[in-house]
Amino acid sequence: MGRKIDLVADLGEGFGPWRMGDDSALLDVLSSANIACGFHAGDPQIMDQTVRECIARGVGIGAHPSFPDRQGFGRRDMGLTAEEVRTDVLYQLGALQAVAAYHGSAVTHLAPHGRLGNLVAVREDYAAAVAEAARRVDPELIVLAQDGALADAARAQGLRVGIVGIADRAYEDDGTLVRRSEPGAVIHDAEEIRRRTVRMVVDGVIESRGGVQIPVACDTVLVHGDTAGAVALAKQIRAGLEAEGVEIAPLADWLQ
Amino acid sequence: MGRKIDLVADLGEGFGPWRMGDDSALLDVLSSANIACGFHAGDPQIMDQTVRECIARGVGIGAHPSFPDRQGFGRRDMGLTAEEVRTDVLYQLGALQAVAAYHGSAVTHLAPHGRLGNLVAVREDYAAAVAEAARRVDPELIVLAQDGALADAARAQGLRVGIVGIADRAYEDDGTLVRRSEPGAVIHDAEEIRRRTVRMVVDGVIESRGGVQIPVACDTVLVHGDTAGAVALAKQIRAGLEAEGVEIAPLADWLQ
Amino acid sequence: MGRKIDLVADLGEGFGPWRMGDDSALLDVLSSANIACGFHAGDPQIMDQTVRECIARGVGIGAHPSFPDRQGFGRRDMGLTAEEVRTDVLYQLGALQAVAAYHGSAVTHLAPHGRLGNLVAVREDYAAAVAEAARRVDPELIVLAQDGALADAARAQGLRVGIVGIADRAYEDDGTLVRRSEPGAVIHDAEEIRRRTVRMVVDGVIESRGGVQIPVACDTVLVHGDTAGAVALAKQIRAGLEAEGVEIAPLADWLQ
Amino acid sequence: MGRKIDLVADLGEGFGPWRMGDDSALLDVLSSANIACGFHAGDPQIMDQTVRECIARGVGIGAHPSFPDRQGFGRRDMGLTAEEVRTDVLYQLGALQAVAAYHGSAVTHLAPHGRLGNLVAVREDYAAAVAEAARRVDPELIVLAQDGALADAARAQGLRVGIVGIADRAYEDDGTLVRRSEPGAVIHDAEEIRRRTVRMVVDGVIESRGGVQIPVACDTVLVHGDTAGAVALAKQIRAGLEAEGVEIAPLADWLQ
Repeated sequence: MGRKIDLVADLGEGFGPWRMGDDSALLDVLSSANIACGFHAGDPQIMDQTVRECIARGVGIGAHPSFPDRQGFGRRDMGLTAEEVRTDVLYQLGALQAVAAYHGSAVTHLAPHGRLGNLVAVREDYAAAVAEAARRVDPELIVLAQDGALADAARAQGLRVGIVGIADRAYEDDGTLVRRSEPGAVIHDAEEIRRRTVRMVVDGVIESRGGVQIPVACDTVLVHGDTAGAVALAKQIRAGLEAEGVEIAPLADWLQ
Repeated sequence: MGRKIDLVADLGEGFGPWRMGDDSALLDVLSSANIACGFHAGDPQIMDQTVRECIARGVGIGAHPSFPDRQGFGRRDMGLTAEEVRTDVLYQLGALQAVAAYHGSAVTHLAPHGRLGNLVAVREDYAAAVAEAARRVDPELIVLAQDGALADAARAQGLRVGIVGIADRAYEDDGTLVRRSEPGAVIHDAEEIRRRTVRMVVDGVIESRGGVQIPVACDTVLVHGDTAGAVALAKQIRAGLEAEGVEIAPLADWLQ
Repeated sequence: MGRKIDLVADLGEGFGPWRMGDDSALLDVLSSANIACGFHAGDPQIMDQTVRECIARGVGIGAHPSFPDRQGFGRRDMGLTAEEVRTDVLYQLGALQAVAAYHGSAVTHLAPHGRLGNLVAVREDYAAAVAEAARRVDPELIVLAQDGALADAARAQGLRVGIVGIADRAYEDDGTLVRRSEPGAVIHDAEEIRRRTVRMVVDGVIESRGGVQIPVACDTVLVHGDTAGAVALAKQIRAGLEAEGVEIAPLADWLQ
Repeated sequence: MGRKIDLVADLGEGFGPWRMGDDSALLDVLSSANIACGFHAGDPQIMDQTVRECIARGVGIGAHPSFPDRQGFGRRDMGLTAEEVRTDVLYQLGALQAVAAYHGSAVTHLAPHGRLGNLVAVREDYAAAVAEAARRVDPELIVLAQDGALADAARAQGLRVGIVGIADRAYEDDGTLVRRSEPGAVIHDAEEIRRRTVRMVVDGVIESRGGVQIPVACDTVLVHGDTAGAVALAKQIRAGLEAEGVEIAPLADWLQ
C-alpha cells in the first residue's frame, strides 16, 4: 500500500465583512482544514459556510482555536493561565462541533493557532490543558502538532497525533527551524518548496541549510493560504506528491 | 405521585471582571440554570465555573444563547437573518456542550435570551431555525419557551418543550401579559409573587388583573437573579411550592 | 473662477489583520477621505496610518462614525436611542481628532456611515443628535449629507453642509433614488458613471431613468473603494471632471 | 497659603449592563476622576454620564487609557509595540476629550490604567509614546504617575506631572513598594490608611515596614472605588486631611 499524506491549511479566517485568502479555491486542493473558531478570526456564519464546503469536498474538519485576540489575529501572548487556555479551547472546539453536527458531520482534528500554537509546543501546562480538553470532549480527536509539548501531552492522553511538516522553512543541522529573524529562514521559491515537500513525505528527510539530511516524520503538510500564489503553490505540492504515488487523504481516514 | 416543577434562572451573566447577581446563592435554590454563552454575557471561564457549580448541586444545565450584543446585553433587535440566528445558536450551544462534556455532564435544555427570546415567540423563521439547530445537534434537548412560535417549532421537530411560567407579571383577561409600559405590569410584592406561583403550579391557574381565572400550563418557573432580594424571593417561592407538596426537580428528570 | 468639487471615498475600513480596498491607490485620486473610527471598521493603528497618508497628499480628513457593529459592518439598525447615537458619534469623532492633532492636522468633516448614514437622513432625533454633537465639539466641521434630516439639522446648528452627489445610482423622475431592489438601480458601467458625474457637477443635472433632467446640488462626489476597478473608475471620474475645467479640492478649502 | 492635595479614583469602569463600584457616592468625595475610555472598561454612554457627574461636582476630568483588553480588564501585557501604545492612547484620550467638549468642559489629566500603567513606569519606549501623544494633543495636560519612566518622559515633553501617592501599600526601607506577593504588602486597616495618608501629605513622609521615615512627594492620592467600604474609607481620608487644614482641589487648579 502506498504512502498517504494529509494536506492542510488554515481556513475561514475572515470576520464579518472581511475575508482572508481564497478559501474555496484552496479547499479544492486540501484534504483537511484548520477552521478558525471565532477568537482570532471566523464567526458563526463563516464557520458554517466553511464546514459546508469541507463536507462537499470530503475535506477533514479541524478546530483551529486561538487566544481571544481578533485585533492581533491571535499572534500575541496574552499571558493567560492554563485554566483560561483550557476553557477557551473547550469553547471554540464545542462551537465548531455543533456547526459540524448540524450538517451531519464532525470535527476530526484540533490544531492550535498562532501564538497559542507556538506556546503549546513549549509550555507543558498549556499543552496538558489543551490535550486534556480534547480527550475529555472527544477521545477520537487527532491533535495536529510539531514535535514538542503538545504532541507529548496528546499521546499521554491516548490521543492520536498528526505531526505537521513544514516545507517552506529552512532547518539548522540539528533539526530545529532557522529563526525567522535570520536571512533565508523562510523559503519563497515555489519549486524548491514543492521539491522539499516531496522529499519530506516520500523519503522522510529534509536538508538543512548546512547540507545535512535530517530525518523528519510528517503526517500532514501545512500549506499557507493567505499569500498571493498560495493556491497555485498548493496545487504544485499536491501534484508533486501525487506524481510520486502519494495519496492525499484526511488524517482521520488512515492515521493509526 | 406528586406534582413536579422546575425552578430556573438566568446565570453566568458576568463578563471578564464584571458579575451580575449572586449566582452561588441562587444556585442553592434552583433546579435548572440558563447559562449565558458568551454573546450577551458569559465567557469561557465563567461558563466553566457555572457548569461546575451546577454539577455540584445537581442543577440542570441549559444553554442561554443570545444575539451577539454584549454592550446591549442581548436586548436589542440586530435585524439578523434566520440563517444568522441558526449559526449563532449552534455556536453558543456547542460551546457550552463542550464545557459540560469536559466535566462529564451535558446540556439538557435550551432557552433563548432577551430579544432573541422575545422574537422566537413570534417570528416563525427564527423559531424554526432555533428548533432545527437544537434537534440536529441533540434531539434529547428540551426547549424552554412560553406558548408561541418556538414551542410550536420545537414540537414539530419532535423536541420536548418546557413551558415557562412567569409569576411576577400581570395578565390580561385573555391570557396575554400586560404590556410593560402599563402600570402594574410587573408585580414586585414578594408575597404576592410567591402566592401566584403556587397557584400557577398547583392549580394551573393565574388570576388576570380583571379577576379572571386563566388556565396556564407550566413546567418551569423563571425566577430573576439580578435584583436585590432575588435570592430571598426565590427561596420563598421554593418553600411555598414545597409546602404544597410540589417537588422541585430538573426538567430532564421528569418531563415527558 | 472655475467650478470646484470634492472627491471623497470611505477609507481605513480594515480591522486588525484585515483590509478592505486599496486605500493608498485611492488616496492618490481623492481630495477627501471618510475615515472609519473603530466602530464598524478601523482601529487606532489603521486610523493613524490613514491620517498620515491623507496629510502627505493634502487630502481632507473626515470622521466616518458608525453604529457599534463590527461584525455587521455598521449596516444593521441596532435600535439605539438618540442619546446613544450622540455619545457614540462624540467618541468616534474625538478619537480621530486626537490622531489628527498628533500629526499637526485636524478633522474637517463628518460623514455618518452605513445604516447610521441612512437613518440620519430620515430620523430627526438622530440627525439632531449628530449635528449638535458636531457643532459643540467643533463649529467649523462640515457635515456631509444628502438632502434630508441631517442636512437640515446641521444647517440649523450653523454648520456648513457638503451635499453628497451619487453618480452610480439611477433616479426616479421625482429626484429620488431608484430602490436598490429594482433592476437597474445601481449603475455599473464606468463610462456612464463618469459621464453622469461630469454632468452632475458641471451642469447640475442628472437624468432620471424616465429621461427627465433633474437639477441636483453637489459639493462632493462619493466614489467607492471596495470593488474591483474602484481605483480605475475614480481616476476616470477625476480625469473627466478635470477635462471640463473642474478643480478637485477638499471642501474645507472652498465650501462657504 | 495651606497645603493642597488632589484626591483621585478610577471611575466609569462599567461596560454595557455592568457596573463596578458606586461612582456617584465616590464622586462626592473626590477632586479628580480617572475615567475609563472604552478599552478596559467604559463605553460612550458611561463616559458621558461620568463626565456630566464630574462637571456637576467640580471634579477634574482625567483620561484613563488602557491596553485594548476588556475581558482582562487591562491587566494583561498584550505585547504591544510603542507605536500601538501611542495610537491606542491617542484614540482613548480624544474620545474622552470630545465627550468633555460637548458638555463645555475639558480633559485636564491623563493616567494610564492597569498593566499599561505599570509598564509606562519602567518601559521608556512606552513612556515616551504616551508623553508625546499627550503633549501633541494638549500641552496643558497633567500626567499622573509615580516616579519612573513616564514621569521623566512627561517632564521631558514639558508637561506637568502629578505624582500619585499610595497610602495603602507597605514600603521597603529604600522607598520601593513591598511586592504584592509578600504578606503585609497591602494595608487593609482603614484607620491606618487614613493616618498614613495624612502623614504622607502633611509631612511628606511615609514609614517603611522597617520603621524608616521615607520622604515622599505626592500631588494626588489614589483611593480605590471597587471594594466594599471604599466610599467610607475615601470619606475618612478626606476628613483626615481637611482636619489638618489641607485643601482638597483638582490638580489643574493649583499644580505648577
